[in-house]
Amino acid sequence: MNAPNTAQHLMPAVNQRPVPPALLDALKAAFGDRCSTAPAVCEQHGRDESAYTTVPPPAAVVFALSTEDVSRAVALAAAHHVPIIPFGVGSSLEGHLLAVEGGISIDLSRMNQVLTVNPEDLTVTVQAGVTRKQLNEEIKSTGLFFPIDPGADASIGGMSATRASGTNAVRYGTMRENVLGLQVVTASGEVIRTGTRARKSSAGYDLTRLMVGSEGTLGVITEITLKLYPLPEAVSAATCSFPSIEAAVRTTIQIIQMGIPIARVELIDANAVRMVNAHSKLTLPEQPMLLMEFHGSPASVKEQAETVQDIAKDHQGHAFEWATTPEDRTRLWTARHNTYFAGIQSRPGCRAISTDTCVPISRLADCLLESVAEVDASGIPYFLVGHVGDGNFHFGYLIDPNSAQERATAEELNHKLVTRALALEGTCTGEHGIGLHKMDFLVSEAGAGAVSMMRTIKHALDPHNIMNPGKVFVY
Amino acid sequence: MNAPNTAQHLMPAVNQRPVPPALLDALKAAFGDRCSTAPAVCEQHGRDESAYTTVPPPAAVVFALSTEDVSRAVALAAAHHVPIIPFGVGSSLEGHLLAVEGGISIDLSRMNQVLTVNPEDLTVTVQAGVTRKQLNEEIKSTGLFFPIDPGADASIGGMSATRASGTNAVRYGTMRENVLGLQVVTASGEVIRTGTRARKSSAGYDLTRLMVGSEGTLGVITEITLKLYPLPEAVSAATCSFPSIEAAVRTTIQIIQMGIPIARVELIDANAVRMVNAHSKLTLPEQPMLLMEFHGSPASVKEQAETVQDIAKDHQGHAFEWATTPEDRTRLWTARHNTYFAGIQSRPGCRAISTDTCVPISRLADCLLESVAEVDASGIPYFLVGHVGDGNFHFGYLIDPNSAQERATAEELNHKLVTRALALEGTCTGEHGIGLHKMDFLVSEAGAGAVSMMRTIKHALDPHNIMNPGKVFVY
Repeated sequence: MNAPNTAQHLMPAVNQRPVPPALLDALKAAFGDRCSTAPAVCEQHGRDESAYTTVPPPAAVVFALSTEDVSRAVALAAAHHVPIIPFGVGSSLEGHLLAVEGGISIDLSRMNQVLTVNPEDLTVTVQAGVTRKQLNEEIKSTGLFFPIDPGADASIGGMSATRASGTNAVRYGTMRENVLGLQVVTASGEVIRTGTRARKSSAGYDLTRLMVGSEGTLGVITEITLKLYPLPEAVSAATCSFPSIEAAVRTTIQIIQMGIPIARVELIDANAVRMVNAHSKLTLPEQPMLLMEFHGSPASVKEQAETVQDIAKDHQGHAFEWATTPEDRTRLWTARHNTYFAGIQSRPGCRAISTDTCVPISRLADCLLESVAEVDASGIPYFLVGHVGDGNFHFGYLIDPNSAQERATAEELNHKLVTRALALEGTCTGEHGIGLHKMDFLVSEAGAGAVSMMRTIKHALDPHNIMNPGKVFVY
Repeated sequence: MNAPNTAQHLMPAVNQRPVPPALLDALKAAFGDRCSTAPAVCEQHGRDESAYTTVPPPAAVVFALSTEDVSRAVALAAAHHVPIIPFGVGSSLEGHLLAVEGGISIDLSRMNQVLTVNPEDLTVTVQAGVTRKQLNEEIKSTGLFFPIDPGADASIGGMSATRASGTNAVRYGTMRENVLGLQVVTASGEVIRTGTRARKSSAGYDLTRLMVGSEGTLGVITEITLKLYPLPEAVSAATCSFPSIEAAVRTTIQIIQMGIPIARVELIDANAVRMVNAHSKLTLPEQPMLLMEFHGSPASVKEQAETVQDIAKDHQGHAFEWATTPEDRTRLWTARHNTYFAGIQSRPGCRAISTDTCVPISRLADCLLESVAEVDASGIPYFLVGHVGDGNFHFGYLIDPNSAQERATAEELNHKLVTRALALEGTCTGEHGIGLHKMDFLVSEAGAGAVSMMRTIKHALDPHNIMNPGKVFVY
């Protein structure tokens, strides 16, 4: 989640539309036990990992087992002009799952089949509820892997809907580059397919990429065809400590500008290292650190690592440590992925407000250092991690959720950060999405004309505004 | 261009809308000499490299110097509900430039400024009329290059509009992956921007990729921000001959499946080698051949080349020849890029009908070999070239344009080829676009539901159907 312009944005506008009993009856008739109105079930589906205050939950949850189920549920809701909200694992950081206009949650987590693996084509087709870890587990024997790794073990459907990425994006791209095709249930309940299994195509409008990142507002993604990659012959991970964030960032900039095909290059500031050490029982030097990984043939991994080591040394990088065994690597990366939870644990009772700006690589040092100075001056506890090879980084502001003062300070910090990132030709969100939280920022970033074009598309494809309404922009 | 279902498709449906004298007067008042109604100018802008029969040319050509010019011309045309057709260098193979509903051509070739190079971010922003060769010439001193290389020296605007690719796509992707942002004039004449210079973003609908590949039907692209790449430290090109097309294709499949980061892998059949030898004064063995290029550090290029050589030998690859000097490499790739013209020269007076199917790599051998057998049996002279690393290949059927029989045979061959490619989960067009020629194929490929969604978007964004009407799908 990300801080908005003003404090009241964390209390989202709620404009509940009525859910007629006739619809609930029809859903129960259609889905039996798989349509629940139990308060605990509805409440669990009406929140996510964002810092939003609670809003009333959806009126019912439908547990879909198939695309046909989704189609039927959407068609019924559409007949009553009632909102539907797709739900994967609930790991959104931006309020995507909140029923701000009421309606029905469609839970896709039981649609968790890996449908077709085509190892010889490096493609796989999955149902939307398959999670990224499950996918990699199920395809392990093929010698292939799916690289996109947001912090949470998110569903592939949710990752597609938010255009997610993670630590491997610097080499393998984001969901934008890795989704080949989709099956989508439209606002009328119709089922369409986009894309093919061919690696490229010039056949008509790119509906695949229109849907990827549309945050459930244009349709419900039910199946996804993804690119896979051969597991690299050799993998090596390294940590390197630096005397300052600036030195670590300058090292990263040079790695990218030289075109070194590094697979991962993550910045972890001294605060985050301290939190991760405590949480994961590690003894990493409590200095800004880069956590890197190299993929390729043994010779190419060695060559990349040597070049990067030379660059790092030019910037006073030291304490280079290598993790070449799978166990050591897993431990390091698990630590990185747990930063968010390590941060939360470091201040009992706190909530983390996570920023998500992304800037062109040459602007990274400017954007980061000024923002670090601001947060330091504010007194708010925080950690900083970043997919710095992409120019994307996250501050986690660790606020006392009961302190209006801390909330306001965090939001002011984020507002300054986003303003700075946009001035540097960057974006307010590298990978988390707009959701509820960044709707104002989207207008600042894209301009009224582009947002108006998005709105025109939304009006045309969802004339009754039933697909995850209240998100991304004002209908 | 590509053969459609029936012969009459090469005589496109013409439904000329009137161009009121008041509009022509207004355009002349606004643009003076830069609005031409001279027959020769209009005729030159009313055709492209496709095999279509002539249609009446546009009523006028506006030579734009700026985005404001484009905006003004579109706004004037919009006021009269008159079609506009953007024109770059005229190298479309699919009839994109034909004024099938009349209207005004907007020539963007004078918008040929490279606006901003950001070498440290590996990005560049150009006006739409900049050609790919011009761009690479202008950025030469930065040590960076732009890899997308369709056969023609196309404009970056046209390449964006058709989602073009070329020989480097197997490593560097297509225009889909390499456009970061756009400036677009919409159907009302409004100017919007899409995307930022950040490498990734989750901010709202992906308008950039909706416009890329929309073939001028949703707006006129006036500026493009592109990714650039460091010129590789080492480059090595090789040719290798094979006893059969199948052996060459099986070699390619194995290279891709092993994840070797080959930069280019092009198939040229024995017919094409013969034509290229004659046209470019080369002495390549007249057998199926792979033309490959490796990019990387000297050590990694050597390693890739050795692995590939081993794979090729397993498939009876022989006559491996290396081109390590820039001059030798340029000569080889120029020959490849000239295949189309070499083919045309091989049969004086002929026209080439070029197919453009693309299939998943594991289906490539099946798709190609059955189609080769069909063309051989037909007696139509042809050449075959392919970006086989992507599963994309082009037959060039060399027909006598005055023979209805040959035209019909070529179209039947292509129809069978596309039907086969779609059954193998491929696409009817890897890189040329739909244009006029593949509108029926688009429906077969994407399905009525997806095409209906495209149409809904088109209706919403272009309610008077003035943006390059009559292309991609029926309005």
